[in-house]
Amino acid sequence: MRIEAGRHPILMIPGPSEPYPEALHIASLKIFEHYGSRWLKIYNVFYEYSLKLFGAESGYVIPFPIPASFTMEVILNSLFDKESNILFINDGFFVRRFKDIALRYGLSVHHVVPQSPGHRVDLDEVGLLMDAVDIEAVVVVHSETSQGILEDLDGISNIVKDRAVLIVDSVSSYGALKIDVIRRGIDICIGYSSKALGALNGITPVYISEEIADKLRERKKYKAFLNDLKVWYEYREIWPFHPYPTSLPTHVILSFIKAAENVLDEGLDKVERRHWDISRYVYRRLEEFGLEGYPEPSSRSPTVSVFKLNDVDADDIVDYLIKKYNILIGTSKFAGYNGIRIGHMGYTANYRFVEPVISGVIEYLSNSSEQ
Amino acid sequence: MRIEAGRHPILMIPGPSEPYPEALHIASLKIFEHYGSRWLKIYNVFYEYSLKLFGAESGYVIPFPIPASFTMEVILNSLFDKESNILFINDGFFVRRFKDIALRYGLSVHHVVPQSPGHRVDLDEVGLLMDAVDIEAVVVVHSETSQGILEDLDGISNIVKDRAVLIVDSVSSYGALKIDVIRRGIDICIGYSSKALGALNGITPVYISEEIADKLRERKKYKAFLNDLKVWYEYREIWPFHPYPTSLPTHVILSFIKAAENVLDEGLDKVERRHWDISRYVYRRLEEFGLEGYPEPSSRSPTVSVFKLNDVDADDIVDYLIKKYNILIGTSKFAGYNGIRIGHMGYTANYRFVEPVISGVIEYLSNSSEQ
Repeated sequence: MRIEAGRHPILMIPGPSEPYPEALHIASLKIFEHYGSRWLKIYNVFYEYSLKLFGAESGYVIPFPIPASFTMEVILNSLFDKESNILFINDGFFVRRFKDIALRYGLSVHHVVPQSPGHRVDLDEVGLLMDAVDIEAVVVVHSETSQGILEDLDGISNIVKDRAVLIVDSVSSYGALKIDVIRRGIDICIGYSSKALGALNGITPVYISEEIADKLRERKKYKAFLNDLKVWYEYREIWPFHPYPTSLPTHVILSFIKAAENVLDEGLDKVERRHWDISRYVYRRLEEFGLEGYPEPSSRSPTVSVFKLNDVDADDIVDYLIKKYNILIGTSKFAGYNGIRIGHMGYTANYRFVEPVISGVIEYLSNSSEQ
Repeated sequence: MRIEAGRHPILMIPGPSEPYPEALHIASLKIFEHYGSRWLKIYNVFYEYSLKLFGAESGYVIPFPIPASFTMEVILNSLFDKESNILFINDGFFVRRFKDIALRYGLSVHHVVPQSPGHRVDLDEVGLLMDAVDIEAVVVVHSETSQGILEDLDGISNIVKDRAVLIVDSVSSYGALKIDVIRRGIDICIGYSSKALGALNGITPVYISEEIADKLRERKKYKAFLNDLKVWYEYREIWPFHPYPTSLPTHVILSFIKAAENVLDEGLDKVERRHWDISRYVYRRLEEFGLEGYPEPSSRSPTVSVFKLNDVDADDIVDYLIKKYNILIGTSKFAGYNGIRIGHMGYTANYRFVEPVISGVIEYLSNSSEQ
């Protein structure tokens, strides 16, 4: 089968993202043995970089070679028993998925949603609920790509930390925004390789705090094998020459290192600013033209811009951008409304990449309104 | 961090294997959106090839982007309830791991082991056990890399099929040997991308028969989310534009297609013969020199050769091969005995790759006995 890269569009969907070219290139260099001293030198670089991107000087990273949703399943299965009270913040595709996982494991689900879609939740409501119910954990999706909303991690952590386990999904912010797990008292944080970081899909680093590690150590029984965080944590010590219980895709780890090097060389502060600049620019240009931004301005994620559409079909804009510019953006249809979603994260958080998208959307809408 | 491919050894461990160069190269070509019509054209090629390598014209393939051990966990969790009787065949690292998973899920474990290590089990014993106990499933590792043993799938399937669910781990034979799931009545079979097939790590195709699919459809309740085969099976229909419940590493799928193309173009018959030729050659040359092959001759897997050592330390041979030839082979130390394990699967099942290993082992042993 012939695959011709040039024929296929640049990805400006909210993930997978177009990787940094260096992070894509290195994947074809070499497969390593995923154990032993030669490999562990490379693995330790991955480990150091992944901790840095979480903003952690202490705590642990578990290198899960599984999808991010699966790591949430491992986390919920590992740390809570049936009927534990778990609170989910805001709405969106992944929040609903995580609620669904919790329900399938028999947990008691609580859910605070905003007064209207596109907004953040009322944090006073979170506080009141936590006063009334013995919430064991709060789950937050930092940047929800189905809605384009960025949650207020500072506000949430002020209410939650020291009262419940704070679990953050930073899948589409990891590598682009400062997560600061230590300062914010985040107990568990899920990173990702192939969205904002700009590396290849296949490795999901998960930060766990020392307090969570203590809990895992103290628990006597196992709840599963690879579906139990305790097993992953313990292999750090059981097998020092192979500090994880299964194989790792070494080429994805190389890709992760390369992307993380790009980010750390540029500086996480500057990378974050670049994402904000691009996000504000995309919203300003398309709102000036008359499009309606979906999230209200103060809750917008800088890694993905979302617009509601009224008169035209999102799929038609997507098709136009593919045909004229060979660029792929996303729609909001699976989330239940007619809208477009433009990913600009990692490598593509750059004027060079968003300018043709803006032009194409404006062209299409101008032409369609003239008809 | 600089990674220089040329400095790192060729992998002749029993996995990960040195990929076919084309299957490594294609990984750096392009990341695709893992859904929609453009991607599904590519995915359907993967699907067709993966079924062919299982020897199936019917049944389904689930494209798990998780390690093979984790797919065994999903399978055992999905299909059996507490105290179900599960029979494990023979001994070895992965058999013990799968038993451990079964125990953690509360299954009743039965285990038939051979009279002495390095042999196959007595199939009469399997038959007698199945007459006495209501065994719901039999788990077989087709080619056990920790011991170098190939199981007698024909003999086992003659006893098991139609009486219990037959689950085969073909991780280190998939892509090198004919699995023939239909003819052998195998209900579930775990393939793999980065051992005998010669592609990159990151995708584990699992074959499920129509009978198992029926069982999954009939079961009313869910046992988990991604840790439940029912969920994976159902997404084929729930999301036809994205027929799996989570993201896939598209570059690994491309690599899988490329490696499978190599195998199918050469012909699976010829590929299998190539593995047998190389295996017999390696055993003959090193046994002529005086080394002791670990598995008894009729139970040897053609993808990995294993030798017991008496007077020298396996690690010293490994070091010698790295230094002089820049080739990495494995030891048997984690399996509890002093031995070497030489992987020759997929790309490296070739005289060009095994000749320097044979020469190196003979040189090292000749030198060490002269001292």
